[in-house]
Amino acid sequence: MDIQYPLELVGTFVFAISGALAVRDREHDLFGAGFTGFITAIGGGSLRDILLGAYPLVWIGDVNFLYAIFAGILLAFIFPSALLKLRKTMFLFDTLGIGFFTVLGVEKAMSLGVRPEIAAIMGMFSAVMGGVIRDTLTNEIPILFRKEIYASACLAGAILYLVLNYFGLARDYNMLISISTVISIRLIAVRYKLSLPRLD
Amino acid sequence: MDIQYPLELVGTFVFAISGALAVRDREHDLFGAGFTGFITAIGGGSLRDILLGAYPLVWIGDVNFLYAIFAGILLAFIFPSALLKLRKTMFLFDTLGIGFFTVLGVEKAMSLGVRPEIAAIMGMFSAVMGGVIRDTLTNEIPILFRKEIYASACLAGAILYLVLNYFGLARDYNMLISISTVISIRLIAVRYKLSLPRLD
Amino acid sequence: MDIQYPLELVGTFVFAISGALAVRDREHDLFGAGFTGFITAIGGGSLRDILLGAYPLVWIGDVNFLYAIFAGILLAFIFPSALLKLRKTMFLFDTLGIGFFTVLGVEKAMSLGVRPEIAAIMGMFSAVMGGVIRDTLTNEIPILFRKEIYASACLAGAILYLVLNYFGLARDYNMLISISTVISIRLIAVRYKLSLPRLD
Repeated sequence: MDIQYPLELVGTFVFAISGALAVRDREHDLFGAGFTGFITAIGGGSLRDILLGAYPLVWIGDVNFLYAIFAGILLAFIFPSALLKLRKTMFLFDTLGIGFFTVLGVEKAMSLGVRPEIAAIMGMFSAVMGGVIRDTLTNEIPILFRKEIYASACLAGAILYLVLNYFGLARDYNMLISISTVISIRLIAVRYKLSLPRLD
Repeated sequence: MDIQYPLELVGTFVFAISGALAVRDREHDLFGAGFTGFITAIGGGSLRDILLGAYPLVWIGDVNFLYAIFAGILLAFIFPSALLKLRKTMFLFDTLGIGFFTVLGVEKAMSLGVRPEIAAIMGMFSAVMGGVIRDTLTNEIPILFRKEIYASACLAGAILYLVLNYFGLARDYNMLISISTVISIRLIAVRYKLSLPRLD
Repeated sequence: MDIQYPLELVGTFVFAISGALAVRDREHDLFGAGFTGFITAIGGGSLRDILLGAYPLVWIGDVNFLYAIFAGILLAFIFPSALLKLRKTMFLFDTLGIGFFTVLGVEKAMSLGVRPEIAAIMGMFSAVMGGVIRDTLTNEIPILFRKEIYASACLAGAILYLVLNYFGLARDYNMLISISTVISIRLIAVRYKLSLPRLD
């Protein structure tokens, strides 16, 4: 059985929750929160597939992704306080999400026959662009531009996946190693407040 | 004779006016106002068609939509004060616009064979995303996230259309009822300052 | 030998530099600067091609554009101070960039068989939308809406190109004249602080 499909569903579900909860401290009604959760969940993958011309988009062609999104939004509506108390849990889920989406995005791009450089960028876009679109719509500084290492962890994991793939590592091991790398970089960066140097 | 085509042209025309006037109180020159009118008019339908992979986009394939947009922008340039004094008129036009675009978006999506859940979302996107893009470009909080019921009225009308269609209601009656529902919800919400509960 | 290809590469390179340097005075790390340079360089052309359904996107189908972008970002990383001291140089590069991209965008659209009105809009979008997306992501007022003439110079050059093409002027002369027109309008507007009237 293929591990990719359930991983992508779980990632979508998690992103919907984090998107819906992201607007909680602002003047958003329930609908605005659900809308933001929806955009966060579909944004990265949709942008990737639109750039690649890969139709139909995943969530349009497969209704299970819609169900995953609706379930995530519903959960955020019913248990907002509990979920926010679980802030560390949410952070972990988001970190798992960007790990999975990075590697799935690389694989999707490669399956369409693009060059590895493009596949690496598409992996990163899949993972972070939903959050970027969410932050842009809600007039926040996109998470990408905030202090801790975020998108760069995804890009590093994407490149690692491509290198290991080039050297013939079996796909399952490669996924495990590359996803773990994204997650580890992100966790270590947040734990030790690591950031990349600034341009000055 | 098909009623859909003239309705879509009128909706495009109205959105161009409201977009061009939206930037009036800020530091925009005439060109910026026209540009904003253009983006507002094409944004929702273009996003819908890009997500669905439905090419050519309506305004690229049919020059009458360009004429409708240019006419709207020109009118906003010539009579800005008169139109703004008619603020209530403009509000009504915008409300008519989201009503029409919701149902037209649902129909367009269904004609491409997508599931009804997707068609409902596409109807809502058609109606509101032009305004969301306009507000994002001009650094406003998108109208979607402001207090009164807006996008949720569109989603309700889209779902109603799909339900009535499922039960076999004739298309003309269905359009009339569903468009009226969107318009009524929006008018009543603004009149009585109704809003959805917040997430807290 | 065709002049269009090297011009487009140089324009992409220049836009990557100006995008990477645009975030320097804010809290961006190196990665954020590179990401912004990337988005600025691909934004306008990608939007044009997505609206037109012209796949594959230029930078996805031809790796030389990626190299041009990476070279521009690298240069911005290594010599940020020198480049910013050359502010006038950067301004000139950006002005050259919008001149070239306007005419290249018009030609690309016409080669896809769209109407001249659409081609003019696509020429302008190619030139300015990368910067608009950059400014939206970084929460700036898009350059389009600031005081001096910018996008309107591109639209004027695009229309001139189409008019001269209609009257049969040879392509090389037409490119030269139209690109020079965009550049001249922009330079004169900035030099003499010319702006279009506001809507009030």
